[in-house]
Amino acid sequence: MPQKDLLETIIEQVRPLLGKGKVADYIPALAEVDPTKLGIAVTTIDGQTIGAGDYLEPFSIQSISKVFSLTVALTLYEEAEIWSRVGKEPSGQSFNSLVQIELERGVPRNPFINAGALIIADLLQSRLGAPKHRMLEVVRKLSANPHVIYDKRVAASEYEHSARNAAIAYLMKSFGNFNNDVDRVLRNYFHYCALKMSCADLSKAMLYLANRGQSLSAEQVVSPIQTRKLNALLATSGLYDGAGEFAYRVGMPGKSGVGGGIIAVIPGDMSICVWSPELDKNGNSLAGTAALEKLSQALGRSIF
Amino acid sequence: MPQKDLLETIIEQVRPLLGKGKVADYIPALAEVDPTKLGIAVTTIDGQTIGAGDYLEPFSIQSISKVFSLTVALTLYEEAEIWSRVGKEPSGQSFNSLVQIELERGVPRNPFINAGALIIADLLQSRLGAPKHRMLEVVRKLSANPHVIYDKRVAASEYEHSARNAAIAYLMKSFGNFNNDVDRVLRNYFHYCALKMSCADLSKAMLYLANRGQSLSAEQVVSPIQTRKLNALLATSGLYDGAGEFAYRVGMPGKSGVGGGIIAVIPGDMSICVWSPELDKNGNSLAGTAALEKLSQALGRSIF
Amino acid sequence: MPQKDLLETIIEQVRPLLGKGKVADYIPALAEVDPTKLGIAVTTIDGQTIGAGDYLEPFSIQSISKVFSLTVALTLYEEAEIWSRVGKEPSGQSFNSLVQIELERGVPRNPFINAGALIIADLLQSRLGAPKHRMLEVVRKLSANPHVIYDKRVAASEYEHSARNAAIAYLMKSFGNFNNDVDRVLRNYFHYCALKMSCADLSKAMLYLANRGQSLSAEQVVSPIQTRKLNALLATSGLYDGAGEFAYRVGMPGKSGVGGGIIAVIPGDMSICVWSPELDKNGNSLAGTAALEKLSQALGRSIF
Amino acid sequence: MPQKDLLETIIEQVRPLLGKGKVADYIPALAEVDPTKLGIAVTTIDGQTIGAGDYLEPFSIQSISKVFSLTVALTLYEEAEIWSRVGKEPSGQSFNSLVQIELERGVPRNPFINAGALIIADLLQSRLGAPKHRMLEVVRKLSANPHVIYDKRVAASEYEHSARNAAIAYLMKSFGNFNNDVDRVLRNYFHYCALKMSCADLSKAMLYLANRGQSLSAEQVVSPIQTRKLNALLATSGLYDGAGEFAYRVGMPGKSGVGGGIIAVIPGDMSICVWSPELDKNGNSLAGTAALEKLSQALGRSIF
Repeated sequence: MPQKDLLETIIEQVRPLLGKGKVADYIPALAEVDPTKLGIAVTTIDGQTIGAGDYLEPFSIQSISKVFSLTVALTLYEEAEIWSRVGKEPSGQSFNSLVQIELERGVPRNPFINAGALIIADLLQSRLGAPKHRMLEVVRKLSANPHVIYDKRVAASEYEHSARNAAIAYLMKSFGNFNNDVDRVLRNYFHYCALKMSCADLSKAMLYLANRGQSLSAEQVVSPIQTRKLNALLATSGLYDGAGEFAYRVGMPGKSGVGGGIIAVIPGDMSICVWSPELDKNGNSLAGTAALEKLSQALGRSIF
Repeated sequence: MPQKDLLETIIEQVRPLLGKGKVADYIPALAEVDPTKLGIAVTTIDGQTIGAGDYLEPFSIQSISKVFSLTVALTLYEEAEIWSRVGKEPSGQSFNSLVQIELERGVPRNPFINAGALIIADLLQSRLGAPKHRMLEVVRKLSANPHVIYDKRVAASEYEHSARNAAIAYLMKSFGNFNNDVDRVLRNYFHYCALKMSCADLSKAMLYLANRGQSLSAEQVVSPIQTRKLNALLATSGLYDGAGEFAYRVGMPGKSGVGGGIIAVIPGDMSICVWSPELDKNGNSLAGTAALEKLSQALGRSIF
Repeated sequence: MPQKDLLETIIEQVRPLLGKGKVADYIPALAEVDPTKLGIAVTTIDGQTIGAGDYLEPFSIQSISKVFSLTVALTLYEEAEIWSRVGKEPSGQSFNSLVQIELERGVPRNPFINAGALIIADLLQSRLGAPKHRMLEVVRKLSANPHVIYDKRVAASEYEHSARNAAIAYLMKSFGNFNNDVDRVLRNYFHYCALKMSCADLSKAMLYLANRGQSLSAEQVVSPIQTRKLNALLATSGLYDGAGEFAYRVGMPGKSGVGGGIIAVIPGDMSICVWSPELDKNGNSLAGTAALEKLSQALGRSIF
Repeated sequence: MPQKDLLETIIEQVRPLLGKGKVADYIPALAEVDPTKLGIAVTTIDGQTIGAGDYLEPFSIQSISKVFSLTVALTLYEEAEIWSRVGKEPSGQSFNSLVQIELERGVPRNPFINAGALIIADLLQSRLGAPKHRMLEVVRKLSANPHVIYDKRVAASEYEHSARNAAIAYLMKSFGNFNNDVDRVLRNYFHYCALKMSCADLSKAMLYLANRGQSLSAEQVVSPIQTRKLNALLATSGLYDGAGEFAYRVGMPGKSGVGGGIIAVIPGDMSICVWSPELDKNGNSLAGTAALEKLSQALGRSIF
């Protein structure tokens, strides 16, 4: 179990990296974030959460929400139903490429690229009466924070810049791999991405990934074997086109978002969340990755 | 530590899969192998090796040799020198695609696809007087088997069908990322691929990956941190375009070869080798993957 | 000037090809056409029209409408405005590929592939109050046939299967190269494609391409130099991915549609239209192409 | 028939463009050319040749040689034999792309991109005892100039930078579409490219393309129908990825080389050659294209 001191040391060690990355600016609402924010939180399987820096301040979780979506889908569908619609392989391409979808006839490579997450959102739409409401419920419960909300302004801003995601969804539809109204699914998808959570919220919410599927409130979210599989997918596909580099440097399953958050997991031990809005060339938090690397080294722990 | 009984049970459990895959036939010498061969061996960090089935019979290790090449390169070069020439990311493409190399201007995605392994072979050529001889020495020592040899007939057969690998090497050369004579590097590369080793040999030889860089003979082959990184690369890129599926089902760093062998590692515990010549659509041993999946389940062990 | 006899002979010579191609079936309304239809019409610059076979029967002109759209755009915009939004080069790809649009950042290769025609439709939308109405007006006038209509059933059927074209339009929009509402432009675009015209109508309507921009009714539709340029674009990009083969065999600027029509031009002499619903692998009328080849040989005329 | 005055006027009109393009510099021997060279020559079907500027100075014809190669191949093989090995379609790709060859399984798009010309060189190798000698003979005869030579220094320089062409040849070989020794074919191919000819030589040598297959010395080089087909291929694929733009602006079948030469044809009238070493972004002579455009306008002649 890391001490609060260690987390504070790490924060100070990586702070000099601020200014070396680039805040996501494809939508105005994200570009406004204070680029100097920096936080880390760790939740251990005994239920303790510690943190350092801006770890209590909510931020836009963006693609980290894809972990929640897939988790909810795993509770609604047989695995085979999911994997007939989306693959399990790293994409080897920029995270929103249409080339692969065209070459592989409408089936995206994995559920953590945009195309795959849209498939998962389409699956949720088919089974849930009110997917936005349900997602909020799930996330509040997992994080034990009833105050988690959607940032409506971010969701609206994403929707206004949704042409590329619409192109992806229509392309998959043209191959018969999209069942619901594209516009409706996009609106829900952008809400998931617009969840506002802090490092503390996220490290708590992801604890089930470290704890054989059991959440902070001792609920069995998914089975132990499903948890192992989720971690395997995160390890190979969670960091866009930087999964190899992340495994090499950090050695933990993880998922990043363009809001600058990254969650990571040491199975059997702890879930972690870091936040720093500036991104590297692969769209992953630059200082956040460095903080995870330092934590991994300090603890002498990785999955490898 | 698994018991010999367990390995024998697994062999019998997966035997019914024989006949469902396809032996590699791109060179005659490989196509002649008996498709019913099936073996497994495990070497634990205490130095014990057990096995079942045809685990003592040598086979063509093919791409498994890429692990040895990279390991030797790590002992000859600074890491930065290596990673300026080859990437660390999954390819997301068929294992011998030229498209990626063209789009990414001569830098292959990782050292475990053919293009990347040719870069490593080019690096070895630049630093070693007699690379073929040295590789044999290394492999004999790691496996504690002085009788490991190159199958000259396989090496010659590969060379006769080397047009695609020559195209890859020349393409990288055209981008300034290949330094030695293409023909000479190809000849050595095909020899590495033509190493004949048994499951027992390979599980022993790979022990350093499970044992923080220390070989069966207690030699520190690479550092603990390098070992961790090797495993990270194997986990994300070791199984061609099936790395995600392999992580999902087996949950171990691993490397496969078209000869039907797969090596896998549980860091801190054991190295494993399976062999069954019939391949799945991704070019990985079909029954071999199933055997590893069963072993992972039986031991309740995976990295995730 | 060809004689009616010649056209009838050609029709009989190519009739044995019926049954060797495949009627377009991506929308039900097109799949229902009688595959044995076969017609040819020629309009000479002195204003005479002759024909043979089913040359008076209206069919769905589909992509032939792209010639009309571009022609109207040339009357509404400066050339530079058009060519900043769409290229002039052959695509070298299947006619509805998204790969090229992604690689070339939203600018389609030419105005005769779907993506390029959608750009032209977007341009028309921006300048015309009622584009559908205007297009009908133009086409009726060019063909001197006030009874030309849209086939509403075909337009509706196309719209119901529009996912791929929607994907293309949204992808271009994501690169900033689409200005109007995608849905609205698609509806108009599908109407243009659903124009019903006979070979006689089309050979008359295209006369301006053979007559230095002057229509059957002696109206100067576009300038002589613009006419030359239109013919140049048709020669290099009018036949999808079969432009080279068409130039090689027929040697005339031309434009095909999946309804089985092809128009072709001998500048200074005549405009031609053939119709036979069965298509070759490139999506061009199989017997139609053969008929044009025979006409070219019989007249000893081509542009080469 | 244009007058010498006209050619001189055109030369002066385009001279201000010098300095706006970029001399090919991928091999040192080409980079040394004087960038201010500028010439034009026209040979009419009555056998007259006129010229202006540096039209008598030999330059490196480079890819213009691909017209001669294909012509010789047409005299040695049945057409079907040729077109089973290489296509007739525009490439829609950069002129030396491997992507297309991989996607289309070893068959290059047309005989005027490098890959296609290598196929033609492989075909010549199979049928000719001394292909280099024969090519020189053919070219000397067509141009009525016994002093045409290979620039051995350019050929050697190309060979030293041949990695990309070697990659292309080996890739085609890997698909079974290359029969001779790659190295030997490359050496001959580079010699063809290293032919030194003047605008006058080239306009004379290409006269058969304007004259139904009949050369300056009244020899029937290829049949009238083959001539027409050659012109069709030149019109759709002769200008790399600028064929559409060239047709649009110039409206003649043509072939360019990175040495800055372009040959063009007005069937039934004349063959033309321009030379100016600076290239545009597509690798075609910038001032040369402009000169052809002005000639086309001045004569009021194009094929469209």
